[in-house]
Amino acid sequence: MRRFCRTGLTLLVGAGLGASLTRLLSDASRHEVQEESGLLSRIPVLPVPSVHASELAVSPGASGAVMKYGFPSMANIKTRESYVTSYDPRTRTASWVIEKLNPAALTGTSDRKFCDFKEDDSVHVFHRATNADYKGSGLDRGHLAAAANHKWSQKAMDDTFYLSNVSPQNPHLNQNTWNNLEKLCRSLTKRYLNVYVCTGPLYLPRQEADGKLYVRYQVIGRNHVAVPTHFFKVVILEQADGRGVELRSYVLPNEPVDDKVPLERFLVPIETIERASGLLFVPNIMKRTSSLQAIGAR
Amino acid sequence: MRRFCRTGLTLLVGAGLGASLTRLLSDASRHEVQEESGLLSRIPVLPVPSVHASELAVSPGASGAVMKYGFPSMANIKTRESYVTSYDPRTRTASWVIEKLNPAALTGTSDRKFCDFKEDDSVHVFHRATNADYKGSGLDRGHLAAAANHKWSQKAMDDTFYLSNVSPQNPHLNQNTWNNLEKLCRSLTKRYLNVYVCTGPLYLPRQEADGKLYVRYQVIGRNHVAVPTHFFKVVILEQADGRGVELRSYVLPNEPVDDKVPLERFLVPIETIERASGLLFVPNIMKRTSSLQAIGAR
Repeated sequence: MRRFCRTGLTLLVGAGLGASLTRLLSDASRHEVQEESGLLSRIPVLPVPSVHASELAVSPGASGAVMKYGFPSMANIKTRESYVTSYDPRTRTASWVIEKLNPAALTGTSDRKFCDFKEDDSVHVFHRATNADYKGSGLDRGHLAAAANHKWSQKAMDDTFYLSNVSPQNPHLNQNTWNNLEKLCRSLTKRYLNVYVCTGPLYLPRQEADGKLYVRYQVIGRNHVAVPTHFFKVVILEQADGRGVELRSYVLPNEPVDDKVPLERFLVPIETIERASGLLFVPNIMKRTSSLQAIGAR
Repeated sequence: MRRFCRTGLTLLVGAGLGASLTRLLSDASRHEVQEESGLLSRIPVLPVPSVHASELAVSPGASGAVMKYGFPSMANIKTRESYVTSYDPRTRTASWVIEKLNPAALTGTSDRKFCDFKEDDSVHVFHRATNADYKGSGLDRGHLAAAANHKWSQKAMDDTFYLSNVSPQNPHLNQNTWNNLEKLCRSLTKRYLNVYVCTGPLYLPRQEADGKLYVRYQVIGRNHVAVPTHFFKVVILEQADGRGVELRSYVLPNEPVDDKVPLERFLVPIETIERASGLLFVPNIMKRTSSLQAIGAR
């Protein structure tokens, strides 16, 4: 079933990073870490199966709740006003957070000046991040589901301030390129019926001097909150008029990124994220549409 | 509820590592990594709440299935002939494996010469370890639930050879001290009604030259199977005659360990494992007994 669905995909990976990664992935030397310079030089080489183009009829979905396209995993699910999340008690941050954006969600009088970052007391105290953990770390409390996506309700915006919806994030990234990516997601609501956004941390390996691959990430505070090496955003775009679903999947390193670099440069094949995160997106999406178009660089 | 249960614990932490860690844990400088030399110098300092001694009446449990004392987490549970496990698709190995030992389980004609390590095809191919991943790594395919614990049925022994019940393990550790710990678990079946053993990997942080804490672990093979920095074994010992439950919790580094070092030296407070692993043991155990005695070094 899974393999069958995969063959029904269109993977339009263009001239940007996606294509670069795809070329690398089809290379014989799959275990070598990408040595090219560039912003994503730390992305490990993950094998991706070949896919074939196909455009089939779409089954027009009903107006979807957040979970319309399923959950990437089923562990420690928490449902909030503005998102659904899976919490990882070992890293003290989410595995993923899914939200649904449309013009209605982005409109309203909610204001983040009424919001404070807060502990998530639904998480056991042994596995919970606190504001004190971030203090003095030099890292931002980076929203996974963005506050500005949920102006429709103060409660919805408040809920994005749970520290379970937050990861330690490089301040420059958070305030520049990451912010631009969040804005892009919001702007896509003008062109698509609904925009589902799934965001999460990645802990990617890189080759060290001994030639072996290692995952290495900092932990901060007395609760040892994991600092992701990268972040992903998987954007599921529902087209009007039953024209199917588009998928854009981004990976950004958790470090300063020049905000003049076009966001398309951070597009990667969805399989890269699926393999690295331990999550699955495509099988669930294919249950709701037979037309999935994965968008590479434009 | 949780806090109430905690105060009902007896934590008998003796003269060995447990005591050493406890002393460190109550120290003001909780963020410093243990700098003392010794086998567990890589164990990070994790804060542990103080507990008070108490011995209450035991509720004599019925003859327990593997899950009598609950599951440490609820993600990706798989039930096998000889164990129950929670799989971590990101690390490509288990989060934990629980088995129940008693003299009947250890007796039988099953033979590991009929067993081969095998892929777990219940795991998606993106997140599955293969024998090829281990090849040339210099690491053993280390059983979590041990084969020799399940002589009672060839199927039960076979099931321990799924690579989802295996982690990359230092060969010297696997064949010496780790093997001795497995033997100890089996020998405890002579003195206790039932012996529940929960085993899993740990990925513990250590301080690096910049003074910050980092988790760093190797990944092997094209599927990037995580090499744990440490392993834990939590042993739940059911006493006969309603005298309650004893708990022994061990942490061993995934490196060569001199097998002349007594196993008691690797005892740690259960909270150390609960914090580091993202799992919880004590709340579930306390649902089945009001008398829990955590054993330190003897």
